[in-house]
Amino acid sequence: MAPYLEEERGLFHGSARLVARPASTAELAALVKICAQEGVGIVPQGGNTGLCGGASPKDGQVLVSLQRMNRIRSVDPANFTMTVEAGVVLQTAQDAAERADCMFPLSLGAEGSCQIGGNISTNAGGTGVLRYGNMRELVLGLEVVLPDGRVWDGLRSLRKDNTGYDLKQLFIGGEGTLGIITAAVLKLFPRPRDRQTAFCALSSLDAALALLGRARAATGDQVTGFELVPRIGIEMGTALVPGVNDPFGQAHEWYALIELSSSQQNSGLQEALEVLLADAVEAGVVADAVLANSLEQRAALWKIREGIPEAQKKAGGSIKHDVSVPVAQVPAFIERASQAVLRAMPDARVVPFGHLGDGNVHFNLSQPVGGDKQGFLARWEEMNRIVHDIVVDMGGSISAEHGIGRLKKAELHHYKTPLEIELMQRIKQALDPNGIMNPGSVL
Amino acid sequence: MAPYLEEERGLFHGSARLVARPASTAELAALVKICAQEGVGIVPQGGNTGLCGGASPKDGQVLVSLQRMNRIRSVDPANFTMTVEAGVVLQTAQDAAERADCMFPLSLGAEGSCQIGGNISTNAGGTGVLRYGNMRELVLGLEVVLPDGRVWDGLRSLRKDNTGYDLKQLFIGGEGTLGIITAAVLKLFPRPRDRQTAFCALSSLDAALALLGRARAATGDQVTGFELVPRIGIEMGTALVPGVNDPFGQAHEWYALIELSSSQQNSGLQEALEVLLADAVEAGVVADAVLANSLEQRAALWKIREGIPEAQKKAGGSIKHDVSVPVAQVPAFIERASQAVLRAMPDARVVPFGHLGDGNVHFNLSQPVGGDKQGFLARWEEMNRIVHDIVVDMGGSISAEHGIGRLKKAELHHYKTPLEIELMQRIKQALDPNGIMNPGSVL
Repeated sequence: MAPYLEEERGLFHGSARLVARPASTAELAALVKICAQEGVGIVPQGGNTGLCGGASPKDGQVLVSLQRMNRIRSVDPANFTMTVEAGVVLQTAQDAAERADCMFPLSLGAEGSCQIGGNISTNAGGTGVLRYGNMRELVLGLEVVLPDGRVWDGLRSLRKDNTGYDLKQLFIGGEGTLGIITAAVLKLFPRPRDRQTAFCALSSLDAALALLGRARAATGDQVTGFELVPRIGIEMGTALVPGVNDPFGQAHEWYALIELSSSQQNSGLQEALEVLLADAVEAGVVADAVLANSLEQRAALWKIREGIPEAQKKAGGSIKHDVSVPVAQVPAFIERASQAVLRAMPDARVVPFGHLGDGNVHFNLSQPVGGDKQGFLARWEEMNRIVHDIVVDMGGSISAEHGIGRLKKAELHHYKTPLEIELMQRIKQALDPNGIMNPGSVL
Repeated sequence: MAPYLEEERGLFHGSARLVARPASTAELAALVKICAQEGVGIVPQGGNTGLCGGASPKDGQVLVSLQRMNRIRSVDPANFTMTVEAGVVLQTAQDAAERADCMFPLSLGAEGSCQIGGNISTNAGGTGVLRYGNMRELVLGLEVVLPDGRVWDGLRSLRKDNTGYDLKQLFIGGEGTLGIITAAVLKLFPRPRDRQTAFCALSSLDAALALLGRARAATGDQVTGFELVPRIGIEMGTALVPGVNDPFGQAHEWYALIELSSSQQNSGLQEALEVLLADAVEAGVVADAVLANSLEQRAALWKIREGIPEAQKKAGGSIKHDVSVPVAQVPAFIERASQAVLRAMPDARVVPFGHLGDGNVHFNLSQPVGGDKQGFLARWEEMNRIVHDIVVDMGGSISAEHGIGRLKKAELHHYKTPLEIELMQRIKQALDPNGIMNPGSVL
């Protein structure tokens, strides 16, 4: 059972009565029925790539792996939909869409191993949210095994359906606490035929916002990626991660990676990007910029952004905050949170980066150079409190895209209003009165 | 109280204990608290433009009009959001967005009088859904007075927030049965600076689908409208509605109105549309096409589509079906449902039109020429059953964008599975255990 009980970061060590690997909805339904009768807790697990311990069982619970339920039931390009089982790996779903000359736009670091069921249960985000929305916006229908073992067939492939409460919304982002998603109808989009990527040195942190607004307006809202990178991200990347290079001759404090996409072959996006950047340089928003002229150059620019987590891992202990604030508040949040952290720990390295276009900052702290890793990590909760207090004060979220799981359960109860917790508990009670679905996570 | 108790089509005649017109969330909360204590039913009402009687009270209920809660609390172009109260008229919200050089994309026939609160409560659709989604996709946060009079402040303006159940999803499309929406944070988009519109004569009904797929792929997915028009729509329009003209010299069986939009000034969309249509003519998909060269021409093309409901009203009795099926099934649905209706009523006039891009067909029947209106309307339920049986058999929805209200409550219970009704009832019980919120609608 070991591979199912450990997770990558080693924060959670699960224990389980057994690991069940059903091959069909009927098999899973039969299993849940037995667990319901016996009052045994069930923890569903997809690709086991979650970062909050939401798929980590204990106390004699049954772990249900969806990995054998991995059929792509249908791909329907005329309808721009596909129907897949929960255990389909995200990348497999992306590939199936592409073979039908379409695109499934969810994209995130773990896409080679995370599964669609987990993506839906955690309402996954990633780099395409600015244009295509979170996983919630990409789901048209669901099939769910309910906590009593009955199967809800909500596998509709409709763009408009207003016939009562939209039940699927409860299971999306429900982290398996209300039922187990077994299959889904997903939205597809026309396949991009033109992609333009630029890496910009910004004149200031505030300039990132100005550039985002200009980019959306000047490109027909075809901005499909807008990532913020701090100077320290490039410094740590070039020092620690092979393949990361600084594209500029001099240092700048802040950078943005912009990506534009279009399904049109001659989309004019390259010209639009050139004009956008020339105008932004003239307006003092952008200090310098490079455009990718080949797939290799595009990969090199993305490598700067994607190398940051790897560089952080190599740089020792890291205390992570997956937070969001209103997009326009990102610069103010970064300034304020950085100052507060440095007051408490003057030699911490603040590494804020990520999905600026969604207001989603990975506000990570790397341990002081040469410092003690365990001593640094021992201050995890103290740092969380400092950062999360500011996030909540600015109307933000303490978990933008990773969910709650077991890791952030105490934080959730600390920050949510009692009314909100009460409403969540009433929903939980309504759908899972015996509390057997993923006990220990979220509520 | 009369203006609040009657609705436009005269299908529902409400009666109420009183009409309350609170000016603030606090006033409304105090009112709801009293009603909760006394067990008095409450029916919320926005612009009173709903088509399903969902805002029509009876049996001594209290009608709550949100119309005085009509402040635009803030417009934040840097964040691409605005915060408005429930009673703001949709067009007022659109205008406020435009003054900030943004766009709020929800657009529908009643936009001059319908209100944001009603739009959210019914998850309104309209003509922009293909590109921007239903109202559900346009809401970031809500403020809601709960059935016990407490106020839930969920007015977040975050693009990513995964901290427990997404409570706002219950109130969106909940038709006022779980609480009363008092304010919302809405998503804005860059303002379109280029719009291209074409009216196409199709070679067949199936060709509509082929044209939609081509249009999405060839224009960078910038198709913001794709409406289906049948020959009879043009015939009735030119005969009965001033300003409707047939743009072609000869008759065709089916037509599509395509609209493309971009926030780019020199978007290349006109060239893209010309190439798209030339290719479609060559491929035998399109028989003939006209492009709008001015705002007047654009209005004239839209008038053909928008004149259909007015023409139907002038043509006598009309039995309406606001249904959806998977987009790719629209032609098969129209064929099958038309045949079934004509078997039962050979001289009925079948007028199927609407939002093909969303699979949403207004499958309306006009009374036989010179026939008896009352005799025709007396067969409403019989015709509903014929059409809805086919819709449900094809995996469709019996209410795509109008909701359930009182009008379709019996149909809802006829077609939904007992399990789905049970899940809805459990949610209702969890949030409104005394059943005082919009009793008589939906459940």
